[in-house]
Amino acid sequence: MNFLRYLLTGLLLLTSTSLVYSQNIKWLEVEPGIWKGIIGKPENFDLLKASGAVAVHQGLSDMGQAKFPLGESDITAKVTDGKTYLHFPLSQNEQLYGLGLNFKTVQQRGRILTLHVDNYEGKDNGRTHSPTPFYISSNGYGVFINSARYIQVYAGTAVRTDSKNPPIAQDRNTDDNWSARPYSDGVDILVPAQGVEVYVLGGPTMLDAVRRYNLLSGGGCLPPRWGLGFTQRVQRLSTAADVLKEADAFEEKGYPLDFIGLEPGWQSKSYPCTFEWDKSRFPDPRGFVGAMLKKNVRLNLWTNPYISPESPIAKIIAGYTGSHSVWVGAVADITIPEARQVFFGELSKNKIDIGVSGFKIDEVDGGDEYLWPDVATFPSGHSAEQMRQTYGLMMQRYVTGQYHQLNRRTFGLVRASNGGGSSFPFVIYNDYYNHRDFITALINSGFAGVLWTPEVRDSKTAEEWLRRFQSNIFSPMAMINAWESGTKPWTFPEVAAQVKQMAALRMQMMPYWYSEFAKYHFKGIPPFRSMVLEDGFGNHDLIKNTNDVNLKDYPYGRVITQEVKDQYMAGQYLLVAPMFNGETSRKVILPKGNWYDFYTGKYAGNGEVISVMPGLDKIPVYVKDGGIIPMMPATLHAPKANEKVDLEIRYYGNKPGYYLLYDDDGETFEYEKGAWSFRKIKVELKKGKIAGEISAPVKGKPNTIGKVTFKKMG
Amino acid sequence: MNFLRYLLTGLLLLTSTSLVYSQNIKWLEVEPGIWKGIIGKPENFDLLKASGAVAVHQGLSDMGQAKFPLGESDITAKVTDGKTYLHFPLSQNEQLYGLGLNFKTVQQRGRILTLHVDNYEGKDNGRTHSPTPFYISSNGYGVFINSARYIQVYAGTAVRTDSKNPPIAQDRNTDDNWSARPYSDGVDILVPAQGVEVYVLGGPTMLDAVRRYNLLSGGGCLPPRWGLGFTQRVQRLSTAADVLKEADAFEEKGYPLDFIGLEPGWQSKSYPCTFEWDKSRFPDPRGFVGAMLKKNVRLNLWTNPYISPESPIAKIIAGYTGSHSVWVGAVADITIPEARQVFFGELSKNKIDIGVSGFKIDEVDGGDEYLWPDVATFPSGHSAEQMRQTYGLMMQRYVTGQYHQLNRRTFGLVRASNGGGSSFPFVIYNDYYNHRDFITALINSGFAGVLWTPEVRDSKTAEEWLRRFQSNIFSPMAMINAWESGTKPWTFPEVAAQVKQMAALRMQMMPYWYSEFAKYHFKGIPPFRSMVLEDGFGNHDLIKNTNDVNLKDYPYGRVITQEVKDQYMAGQYLLVAPMFNGETSRKVILPKGNWYDFYTGKYAGNGEVISVMPGLDKIPVYVKDGGIIPMMPATLHAPKANEKVDLEIRYYGNKPGYYLLYDDDGETFEYEKGAWSFRKIKVELKKGKIAGEISAPVKGKPNTIGKVTFKKMG
Repeated sequence: MNFLRYLLTGLLLLTSTSLVYSQNIKWLEVEPGIWKGIIGKPENFDLLKASGAVAVHQGLSDMGQAKFPLGESDITAKVTDGKTYLHFPLSQNEQLYGLGLNFKTVQQRGRILTLHVDNYEGKDNGRTHSPTPFYISSNGYGVFINSARYIQVYAGTAVRTDSKNPPIAQDRNTDDNWSARPYSDGVDILVPAQGVEVYVLGGPTMLDAVRRYNLLSGGGCLPPRWGLGFTQRVQRLSTAADVLKEADAFEEKGYPLDFIGLEPGWQSKSYPCTFEWDKSRFPDPRGFVGAMLKKNVRLNLWTNPYISPESPIAKIIAGYTGSHSVWVGAVADITIPEARQVFFGELSKNKIDIGVSGFKIDEVDGGDEYLWPDVATFPSGHSAEQMRQTYGLMMQRYVTGQYHQLNRRTFGLVRASNGGGSSFPFVIYNDYYNHRDFITALINSGFAGVLWTPEVRDSKTAEEWLRRFQSNIFSPMAMINAWESGTKPWTFPEVAAQVKQMAALRMQMMPYWYSEFAKYHFKGIPPFRSMVLEDGFGNHDLIKNTNDVNLKDYPYGRVITQEVKDQYMAGQYLLVAPMFNGETSRKVILPKGNWYDFYTGKYAGNGEVISVMPGLDKIPVYVKDGGIIPMMPATLHAPKANEKVDLEIRYYGNKPGYYLLYDDDGETFEYEKGAWSFRKIKVELKKGKIAGEISAPVKGKPNTIGKVTFKKMG
Repeated sequence: MNFLRYLLTGLLLLTSTSLVYSQNIKWLEVEPGIWKGIIGKPENFDLLKASGAVAVHQGLSDMGQAKFPLGESDITAKVTDGKTYLHFPLSQNEQLYGLGLNFKTVQQRGRILTLHVDNYEGKDNGRTHSPTPFYISSNGYGVFINSARYIQVYAGTAVRTDSKNPPIAQDRNTDDNWSARPYSDGVDILVPAQGVEVYVLGGPTMLDAVRRYNLLSGGGCLPPRWGLGFTQRVQRLSTAADVLKEADAFEEKGYPLDFIGLEPGWQSKSYPCTFEWDKSRFPDPRGFVGAMLKKNVRLNLWTNPYISPESPIAKIIAGYTGSHSVWVGAVADITIPEARQVFFGELSKNKIDIGVSGFKIDEVDGGDEYLWPDVATFPSGHSAEQMRQTYGLMMQRYVTGQYHQLNRRTFGLVRASNGGGSSFPFVIYNDYYNHRDFITALINSGFAGVLWTPEVRDSKTAEEWLRRFQSNIFSPMAMINAWESGTKPWTFPEVAAQVKQMAALRMQMMPYWYSEFAKYHFKGIPPFRSMVLEDGFGNHDLIKNTNDVNLKDYPYGRVITQEVKDQYMAGQYLLVAPMFNGETSRKVILPKGNWYDFYTGKYAGNGEVISVMPGLDKIPVYVKDGGIIPMMPATLHAPKANEKVDLEIRYYGNKPGYYLLYDDDGETFEYEKGAWSFRKIKVELKKGKIAGEISAPVKGKPNTIGKVTFKKMG
């Protein structure tokens, strides 16, 4: 009995809240350049389990080895009070990026965030559509916390008394150097669980760390070619006839259109949802979808996942739903296979199976005001918190799965994602509508392993309309969302021609966008990303005065360098610098190396800040020296599966250029079985004349490339 | 071994995160009208333990019995995922109040709060100086959650699928009655701990529930008489000579002054703090304090609790401090007796023991940016979260304890409190400076078991200065906080006379304020409180159209009645309706019964909304029919201990009036041993003439009441 008492006492101690046990973390290299550390007893549900991500071993191997980027003993962990505390070191001039889809900030050192899936409410506090618990250091490594909990991050704010680099106490009464925020040499993280899996992602560059994160998360998504065309979302109460007419209008007016999105009115009832076609507005769904497909226009359906009592699945799924309703709709516990079968079966029936191309999955993020509360329970035993952090991830996963079964790719919209979701073919959107902040979000999407669209809805002026449209064209999804406004690309006649030209440019660039998404998929390189991931920009060595930064002047633990939030990289070669309403000129920071005007090929600058006045028609875009942009004709619809398309290979600057042009059938998942190739394009100037070549089609692989011509720009 | 395995399995199951166990709560009546329920395994540290509150059994017994106000089976609890979930029912027209020191809202139904000690940042989201986990229902009961955790409250927002009053699903597409926030019939609460103690406080009125809460928390504080005089906080780098001069200036100019507050510069170094007098500014602390006391002016010392490495206690306390520093200062674990002995011993030494009258305890609330992070650990094993929620409470408790040992009352300022803190003689203040919101906070302080001062710091105009001053006079602490501005009561010469008159009024009303605080102490009645706690106002039956409220028109789960945030009750008889800068008139809602102008005694109205134009000199104040306001002469300093003072008993209206006038020595804790009395005052009109009487002094009790005269107002 003494032995029993001893054992019980020990066990009870383990559950007591005051127990602290620290540990050295054992770092296991699970993929080249990726180390996993296990602290405490990780939960049996986490972000990677929710997303089902499988690391892309080939892509990671191709990247080669990396060194463990930190001193192992500088990383400490502790499990206490039912929570896991993590501490990672920071060096003096280190800057941090990432920590989710932020809208106002890019640099994260000095900030405190609680990573929490939510509607973005105007403040970068961790509550956002994808609060990906992943940060990237300017020292060239990343840290990913694989937990489906609300994680608190003190990104260089907390000061430990045992710090190796302690700040010095100063007297506020008399010392002007006194700081309200003394220097912090670490990132402190609180995971409210009794253990967690943590990943350290090696460099040596920040981009390497980002790539490793995306490859760990299954590789970036590869949309179908049509997904990269133009999409219009129609007014919510549109009928089948309205939609057919709208597609015809695009065709007649000569605006490209690849898919139309139907908003809540396609359902018989919504908020909560029946998931059934409204019989008055859409009497013949199959016929309607077929008629649209004949026009080469696909359909995407809005839905949220909250099940109306009048939905045909309401009764069947009743045993698999949470304790709380959302807009009086039941919330399916989609961690349970039986619930998934019913729920995603319903999404398939008469929708996916009759040719619907995808979904816009709304309101899986929050507001707290309408979502299930954190006290909700679910039959699987997963907590409300875990469900909140992963519902968007899981919706993407299982909708994609439905399409996978039919060997058809999809490309849709979603309002919530999280770590581990890179591979899902969904683009995040929201109700917020600040053009500048939309661009900052686009920059941060590249750190967060998600895609983001700065969608166009409406505008006060033609100028604003065009400026928003121009940015939108250089984003993952070119879209007008007219669910409420009823706007069309030609709504502002003064700029209708320019809008059409931009939409045509989007189509022309499809081979470039498609290849860049393939690199996202196979190599983990985000197609849209921050300037700091670009060579010659990364360590801010370009920007004046950063060498003067020191802790005496800037003691707030923030490395004060210019935070670049209004220009970004789009694919391998393009630097995009959007114009905002009311602006006639702007400054553009060009990294080191020669840069050229995208439209004219003229030299623009090298490692300098230029001032540009592009006029209303143009969004400033620059191409790196040796840049290669493959273009196709400006069709109104994406090429069909395996359809051959002629290419014009544009070449910029003087340096020998090299490009990997991706090819596959464009619509199916056959690429997963190897039915794809990268065609190698080489261009150089020989005695001032362009000399280009493209490698031969790979035998047995899809070949959609017709006639290839080369064009020197400028 | 089978038995052992069985036992171990059971124990392990208990620690698993997916286990859900619900329970019926057993409600034990621990005091008349107060029921305690225990859910799961409550933690061994909570708000009542941190505050050390002992229920005032006598006061509770005097209130008599009450009925358990809810259906017991309608209250449910569950422990799952390491947390406790509570559900309390709501009826259709029920409104909720309380949930901490909110600044913008009074009505809480329909709101989501995370109760978290913090600096108020402009949003009523639960983060505030006293996030007291106590709500009061318009149905006349209260609920108090005795937990030192960050508690999430869904105050009538979450909708359970098993609700007895479920909202009806509607179609957003076509139904104009669709609501983004369907009706919720419950309060859902998440306590992030494996158990919790909950108290239900009976009515039948809301005021009864509030009183029971305050009496459970030890009764409201009883300041010394001098605490209710006027206090001035001087500029931070003032010297002893400056302060002596300042006191003389008040005397010469004829402005009352009872204590002066010294700001950070009294310490040799601060932020972090040495707790030692600065030798250059204060070469002879004992002599200085003594000289001030001779002028009848006490001293209050600013401090925060963060210990400078240069403080004499830095090394001694090193073993009892947290893992993280605040402004490079150590954080004492004051849950440990040894730490307390060192820390509060230091506050006493050469400060309390030489006659310093109290402290202003700063920065015990937060900002996250400077406070210890939630990953901090403390040697006692109490979590960072528990320490955050209770540090302000404990500072008040143990500072008060130091004074208690010396049998001297104190009255000071603090930036954080919490549930269980009603008895501490500290007033909350902050950096926010919105006059309107300051009044809303004053209203909510009465629900939160705390005191709040709408302090005056500076103003853009003489008008604003006077308006702020007028409100401040009708608050728990009449104060100018000039730590930065250097303002004096006479800073705006245009209104210096009016300010002086208001300050004089404060002194005249001291017998009233003192008696009302005694009722806070012995009976739990908040001296400053919401109109909804007043008879004839409570259920909003006064305000037009509230009978028309129905769920069809207002389906948001919010009972839409007028939210009164700009007038309040001050003591038993006064209704105060502050004027704000720029206003020449305002509306005042008078509850049912006759109300009279405080200054003239003229009839003002009865159960109606009146419009008043008081002029710049006056703050509108009204007295209930039969109201009795005891006044003393307008001295410059509070009466000394046991000093006799003549009274003029003002009487308003026609109804027979009854008042309990409190008396004790005014400075010591002898009242705890029974050295106090309530003298009964009765006034009535006999054939239009005033007839008043006061009961004889109680034998053996202090008697400070000199000559008594009665005056009919109006």
